[in-house]
Amino acid sequence: MQPGELGGLTLASAVRLIRSKQLSPVELTLATLERIQSLNEKMATFITVTPDLAMEQAHRAEQAVADGRETGPLNGVPIALKDLIDTKGIRTTAGSSVFDDRVPDEDATVTTRLQEAGAVIVGKTNLHELAFGVTSVNPHYGTVRNPWDPDRIAGGSSGGSAAAIVMGMALGSLGSDTGGSIRIPAGLCGVVGFKPTYGRVPVRGVVPLSWSLDHVGPITRTVEDAAIMLEVIAGRDPLDPYSSDVPTARYSKQLEEGVDGLRIGLPRRAFFRRLNTEVAAALDAAIEAFREMGAELVEVDIPSSEQQRAIFNNIVCPEAFSLHEENLTRTPELIAEDVRLRIEAGRLMLSIDYVRAQRARTMVKRELEAALGRADVLVTPTLPIAAPRIDQTHVEWDDATEPVGHALTRNTRLFNVTGLPTVSLPCGFTGNDLPIGLQITGRPFEEATVLGVAHSYERAAAWSTRRPNL
Amino acid sequence: MQPGELGGLTLASAVRLIRSKQLSPVELTLATLERIQSLNEKMATFITVTPDLAMEQAHRAEQAVADGRETGPLNGVPIALKDLIDTKGIRTTAGSSVFDDRVPDEDATVTTRLQEAGAVIVGKTNLHELAFGVTSVNPHYGTVRNPWDPDRIAGGSSGGSAAAIVMGMALGSLGSDTGGSIRIPAGLCGVVGFKPTYGRVPVRGVVPLSWSLDHVGPITRTVEDAAIMLEVIAGRDPLDPYSSDVPTARYSKQLEEGVDGLRIGLPRRAFFRRLNTEVAAALDAAIEAFREMGAELVEVDIPSSEQQRAIFNNIVCPEAFSLHEENLTRTPELIAEDVRLRIEAGRLMLSIDYVRAQRARTMVKRELEAALGRADVLVTPTLPIAAPRIDQTHVEWDDATEPVGHALTRNTRLFNVTGLPTVSLPCGFTGNDLPIGLQITGRPFEEATVLGVAHSYERAAAWSTRRPNL
Repeated sequence: MQPGELGGLTLASAVRLIRSKQLSPVELTLATLERIQSLNEKMATFITVTPDLAMEQAHRAEQAVADGRETGPLNGVPIALKDLIDTKGIRTTAGSSVFDDRVPDEDATVTTRLQEAGAVIVGKTNLHELAFGVTSVNPHYGTVRNPWDPDRIAGGSSGGSAAAIVMGMALGSLGSDTGGSIRIPAGLCGVVGFKPTYGRVPVRGVVPLSWSLDHVGPITRTVEDAAIMLEVIAGRDPLDPYSSDVPTARYSKQLEEGVDGLRIGLPRRAFFRRLNTEVAAALDAAIEAFREMGAELVEVDIPSSEQQRAIFNNIVCPEAFSLHEENLTRTPELIAEDVRLRIEAGRLMLSIDYVRAQRARTMVKRELEAALGRADVLVTPTLPIAAPRIDQTHVEWDDATEPVGHALTRNTRLFNVTGLPTVSLPCGFTGNDLPIGLQITGRPFEEATVLGVAHSYERAAAWSTRRPNL
Repeated sequence: MQPGELGGLTLASAVRLIRSKQLSPVELTLATLERIQSLNEKMATFITVTPDLAMEQAHRAEQAVADGRETGPLNGVPIALKDLIDTKGIRTTAGSSVFDDRVPDEDATVTTRLQEAGAVIVGKTNLHELAFGVTSVNPHYGTVRNPWDPDRIAGGSSGGSAAAIVMGMALGSLGSDTGGSIRIPAGLCGVVGFKPTYGRVPVRGVVPLSWSLDHVGPITRTVEDAAIMLEVIAGRDPLDPYSSDVPTARYSKQLEEGVDGLRIGLPRRAFFRRLNTEVAAALDAAIEAFREMGAELVEVDIPSSEQQRAIFNNIVCPEAFSLHEENLTRTPELIAEDVRLRIEAGRLMLSIDYVRAQRARTMVKRELEAALGRADVLVTPTLPIAAPRIDQTHVEWDDATEPVGHALTRNTRLFNVTGLPTVSLPCGFTGNDLPIGLQITGRPFEEATVLGVAHSYERAAAWSTRRPNL
């Protein structure tokens, strides 16, 4: 297999080819590392590359196949981790100079689970500082570039994890998502980004930002790939008190159920307002595709989508401050000013502000429960725009000017506030070849339904095969 | 029917007798009002008695039966409301001078539902000030006396609602429960007090104390009576954003399922520590009764029961302050000092304190989920002691001295923090004729299971028939 061929490979096909000895984990890993080597300087995708660890794991995977041993579900597959997921003995920075020399003693639960499944860890991907940067510019480790246009942002905070997939620098990656940080870069880069239900995947060993909003999940080329990775990382960890013991499912075996007869909820209001015309057209086409596949379209109402910014900020700022208080107090100069000020906003907030946000949060949960009583999943655009240029600060609409940061996060945050499972997957491209993202959200712990609906659409629309020229 | 006979009447039997014209709602109401009249001055059970409203409703109920019309499930039954449940045109004080002249324009949702079911509202019962008094002494409206010994507390905050049932001043009442305020007086007075799942019964029009901990529920003589009242008041109110639309059940029709084969969880630790010897003996006998009825006994572990006070206080103080800020700032002199200081504690708490309590809360929920995965219900004593004397400040144990307020609330609060459905019912009497309470707790929205288990025990143990001499 030549390096150039890697581009077309999905995680699922790599697993099958390795298992049947048609693909060598060592060759696949070497080709992947070469790909990182040739593009990383320009694209700022990885903070740390781990060739020694990767080659050791690749050889072990190859030997396991050669010996005819039973192998794990990710045996020999190159995987990248967002650089806030702890890796024993390997620096984990969370994108900040605060953690520039931080080397964890232990693997995160998800790191352990991936490695036990046979994954080959190729490196740690770049991200917004502390997963909380307002802009995509990371002054410490560079700005992650969008593979479809390097002058544009990849989105964040898990930008490196999304961009790496597009460029064949890994066949799957993990990101984290506190307000959209998996789905936003997945949407802007044209890959699949899956945020599971709160508590579905343990967050132990993942540098936290906001304990009640943080989620870990996969970023991959296809929905099937995401399902395979989710199977590996999902499930209760007794050491993680926030993880749930609701039983997991064989997600990758339940993708073929189709959408015939399913009710697709469309929460208009803020989710469907001020959309770029090409995004609006792609969304309409996706909704029409669901209808043609036999789904029933249902209008649902989520009034508090209009208040999502206030609710989210009054939760995330105090929670982020309570977690980063020590760093902000001891070494504020090591954190970029925009990030520092945003977290500092939590320092002086009174408990009653957080009380009010929690009240609103309970209301939002009830609204979503009601909407997901009338519909099986909700469909919205992941973002109202395609990837903006790195220096772009505002989006101009007919009736308003919107800060880029507001536009990027407008449709994703409520599903952190409610902890619902949700995925972004490609639903088209703009005229200048930038990906457009579709967001599908389901009921708590109904990951299988969300993935099944996404898989049906993916197969019908076939956007996942398009790739950038790099 | 003579006034004296009212004592033995249950709500369920009154409903049946009225429906079959063997009991007149007018006579029943008159007898009930006489009972209130003769005892209220001494016992401080009611803040406001509503004879005119009651007689009007009783006549209407009687006419409905006479006309052969279809009548509601509470037709003609005298009911009392804790005086923080709004009643249109009738003063509702929440036990505080702050609200001394407060006359609501609208009924609370539960008030409306009771009246639509045919209930006769006989008055508004006394309570701890703002449902938050540290002691049972209410300087504004008097101290509710325990019917079994007027020198002892009835417990609170819903003391009047519990005492009224024992004395035949109503056949059912509503209380509210933020940290145990239904179950504690039910336990100390020897009646049934039921706190449903958070969101099961709308709290709209109930003076709030703590939005995430507040619950409304029935206090009655028997479990069947509680089930009948719950059926009337349960279910989503679109005007109450915190109420849930999880479907309700026919609770009073599901009481006969028995406990054979059911797993009864016993969470030892803090729940079973430092128990009065008579309470411990009654508890052991109750557990043995469950075993004899075919239940399986399972030990479960709730480690955070050791931290319940800190978790509860860091939630309730900020929430109470955010609700009472205006009153505390404008007219602090109208609130008793102990109550004022306790709520004031929330004023200066930082959001990060509340964040920490919310983190702990999520952990407690996971612990209870796990425990209720291994068991169908949990059984504990409602309180470690029987009713203390009004002037008693501490409980002496072999190894410690405990403030009365701590002892009273020790076993009830975690089920507010987790929002689980839970009931207190009589499980015996001390040598000096004071009731002992048993607490049974179930999974979210499994009210029917909790009531069924309680009903089985109640029938086997037959404590509900004993009554005080008054």
